[in-house]
Amino acid sequence: MKTAVLISGTGSNLQALIQRWQAGGSAYDLKLVVSNKKGVPGLLRAQEANLPTAVIEHLAYPDRDHFDQAMDACLEKHQIELIALAGFMRLLTPWFVKKWSGRMINIHPSLLPAFQGLHTHKKALEYGVRYSGCSVIFVDDGVDSGAIIDQAVVEVLPDDDEARLAKRILAQEHIIFPQALDDVARGKVRLTQGRALRTG
Amino acid sequence: MKTAVLISGTGSNLQALIQRWQAGGSAYDLKLVVSNKKGVPGLLRAQEANLPTAVIEHLAYPDRDHFDQAMDACLEKHQIELIALAGFMRLLTPWFVKKWSGRMINIHPSLLPAFQGLHTHKKALEYGVRYSGCSVIFVDDGVDSGAIIDQAVVEVLPDDDEARLAKRILAQEHIIFPQALDDVARGKVRLTQGRALRTG
Repeated sequence: MKTAVLISGTGSNLQALIQRWQAGGSAYDLKLVVSNKKGVPGLLRAQEANLPTAVIEHLAYPDRDHFDQAMDACLEKHQIELIALAGFMRLLTPWFVKKWSGRMINIHPSLLPAFQGLHTHKKALEYGVRYSGCSVIFVDDGVDSGAIIDQAVVEVLPDDDEARLAKRILAQEHIIFPQALDDVARGKVRLTQGRALRTG
Repeated sequence: MKTAVLISGTGSNLQALIQRWQAGGSAYDLKLVVSNKKGVPGLLRAQEANLPTAVIEHLAYPDRDHFDQAMDACLEKHQIELIALAGFMRLLTPWFVKKWSGRMINIHPSLLPAFQGLHTHKKALEYGVRYSGCSVIFVDDGVDSGAIIDQAVVEVLPDDDEARLAKRILAQEHIIFPQALDDVARGKVRLTQGRALRTG
């Protein structure tokens, strides 16, 4: 499936998607990387992989609606069928979310529904959980509230700070995100009545 | 430490506490089992273990405050130092919670802060999480919001229903609850500024 990755920054999860795609055999076919910020490292990663890139700066648009329209037009131009958000830091308008429902996934660095939103590792450490992790979800119109496609568990260690915990969780993100994207592209996981249903 | 277990029903976690205590070497010393319902299986478990029991029926008291006063008097009479809630289904008054703060622990069948309150397995299955588990906490004046002493992770399987998931999580509860009670009795874990701090 023709797939776009939306980024806002370093794009380390983009890199994981690229590596699996380059290794061959993935059901998702990377066709486009869109960033809402110019000059970010993720764009360089895309270029190194000879992927078409587009920079659509949200600041250049009067509001979220126009920004999402520009993104949507760009995605349509490239005949995109599937979207992976990889550290994309903009909220999306309901019409955009609805249009791409079941075809847009995101990765979040916590065991959802725990610790939605920003600063997840800080929240997890402050709460004192013994286990955290990461979740791949179908994007819905809430904040990190979409149907769970896959999760991975990471133990919180006694001497963890945000950086150390983030690093170990990121390593798990790089495993489950490409796998989940491949599963969705392959039709093994479908969004059905608000749930991620797995077949076969 | 002289320990009371508060129950409302089957008391399978009470059984786990009894087994570890009977095996010897635990830092908690079971001295009393209190039930707010008469005739429940947990009371039989206590009697089989030759533990003193008390039935303090909440329905016999005009309000929560008087009920908690009766419980507190019973605990004091037995010189109790530490309380374990094992399926005790009554909310406790703030003064009771405050009095026993740092000396009263509870077990909850989810990976808190996810799925607080009742019907946790149903909520977890409906949400579609890939992992659930259980948490031992110091009781505070919120609902399952206390500081986490320990947690265990259990994978949710594709064909799980509430009963199957509950059974596998309960097996983990029976491991971490006696261990956490022992850690608290031993002073290895202390409630400090709202956090469960572990030393040594």
